[in-house]
Amino acid sequence: MKKKIGVVLSGCGVYDGSEIHEAVLTLLAIDRNSAEAVCMAPDMELLEIDHLAGQPTGAKRNVLVESARIARGNIRDIAGVKADELDAIIFPGGFGAAKNLCDFASKGADASIQPDVARLLKEMAAAQKPIGAICIAPALIAAVLGKEYAPEVTVGNDAGTAVAINATGSRHLNCPVRELVIDSKNRIVSTPAYMLAGCISEAAEGIEKAVKAVIDMA
Amino acid sequence: MKKKIGVVLSGCGVYDGSEIHEAVLTLLAIDRNSAEAVCMAPDMELLEIDHLAGQPTGAKRNVLVESARIARGNIRDIAGVKADELDAIIFPGGFGAAKNLCDFASKGADASIQPDVARLLKEMAAAQKPIGAICIAPALIAAVLGKEYAPEVTVGNDAGTAVAINATGSRHLNCPVRELVIDSKNRIVSTPAYMLAGCISEAAEGIEKAVKAVIDMA
Repeated sequence: MKKKIGVVLSGCGVYDGSEIHEAVLTLLAIDRNSAEAVCMAPDMELLEIDHLAGQPTGAKRNVLVESARIARGNIRDIAGVKADELDAIIFPGGFGAAKNLCDFASKGADASIQPDVARLLKEMAAAQKPIGAICIAPALIAAVLGKEYAPEVTVGNDAGTAVAINATGSRHLNCPVRELVIDSKNRIVSTPAYMLAGCISEAAEGIEKAVKAVIDMA
Repeated sequence: MKKKIGVVLSGCGVYDGSEIHEAVLTLLAIDRNSAEAVCMAPDMELLEIDHLAGQPTGAKRNVLVESARIARGNIRDIAGVKADELDAIIFPGGFGAAKNLCDFASKGADASIQPDVARLLKEMAAAQKPIGAICIAPALIAAVLGKEYAPEVTVGNDAGTAVAINATGSRHLNCPVRELVIDSKNRIVSTPAYMLAGCISEAAEGIEKAVKAVIDMA
């Protein structure tokens, strides 16, 4: 039986959803480590950003429907996913992790969390199942689990984000782009990816190490 | 100076644009081979497909704007790209390659080609610069270059597509998913990827080999 690794997507595109490279590299690393990806996303609206202009369009899209692009249609509503189906869970980055799955991007440590994302993350932590978080997604983990678990995570070396993460009760550690931070006690793995990466191969190296660490722990 | 490899995108999502995994794996392989990706797409409409439902929505999107999601905003209108800027060019697959860049999906060998795509491909062929094509994209190459160059290409082993490709004056060769077909005379490299792949690592292996072959030839 392959290990089942949840991959929580937040749309399709770095500015309003999941960072596409990070999500695909996560899926590749899961497959290459002989595990099975279980893609999921919340059924909710997102505010569309034109990725050519870098500006909001004023239109809305659906997080689950857009995430299905990355998953080639093979995706579930996170509302129906329980921790006992999964051996581990991984959150790719992109602004969607901080704007759709929660509102950390605007609220920092006081972020509200999408209810099913919060529930599943708390279930995974309570079951001591490994959690991976890439790019800005460690901020989501910090906002959900900070008070109870005081996890150690990284988003690279962004000082403002580090302050907000520390304010959740979590601890931010600086980390180079090709490396990862492992909180062994809480079984939480994080890597900076495009918070620092200047090119896709830099992001890939950290993601490959982080996904392998999550799967080895599972 | 890094070799400059054009990557022609056709939207963002397997059913109405570029196959996202194939596009990202192409960008990764280019970077890991110490070359530079030059992403481009035509500024034109596409018919939106809901990737969760697998159905048309009736709405339209813009190919260049959607492709910018995969390129993280770093993308050019193909109308402004000339062959003398590039050392090679690669076309990832996805239905967008056969529905947006041309209408091979509905017209087969009689396909019309988006004018700038046709122009740039013909410029590259005339300059004997390497051309890579992934998944269904070799059908586009066949439709543009078949009469003049009679290229040998693969989309895997789909009999109907092979007949249509042969009808362009090109020659289809069957090929396993992890392998590639190299037409040395015309410097055209193709690999089946998701025309055959059952998982992302299968697609990745063929794409890594094909991109490396294109860059080595350039």
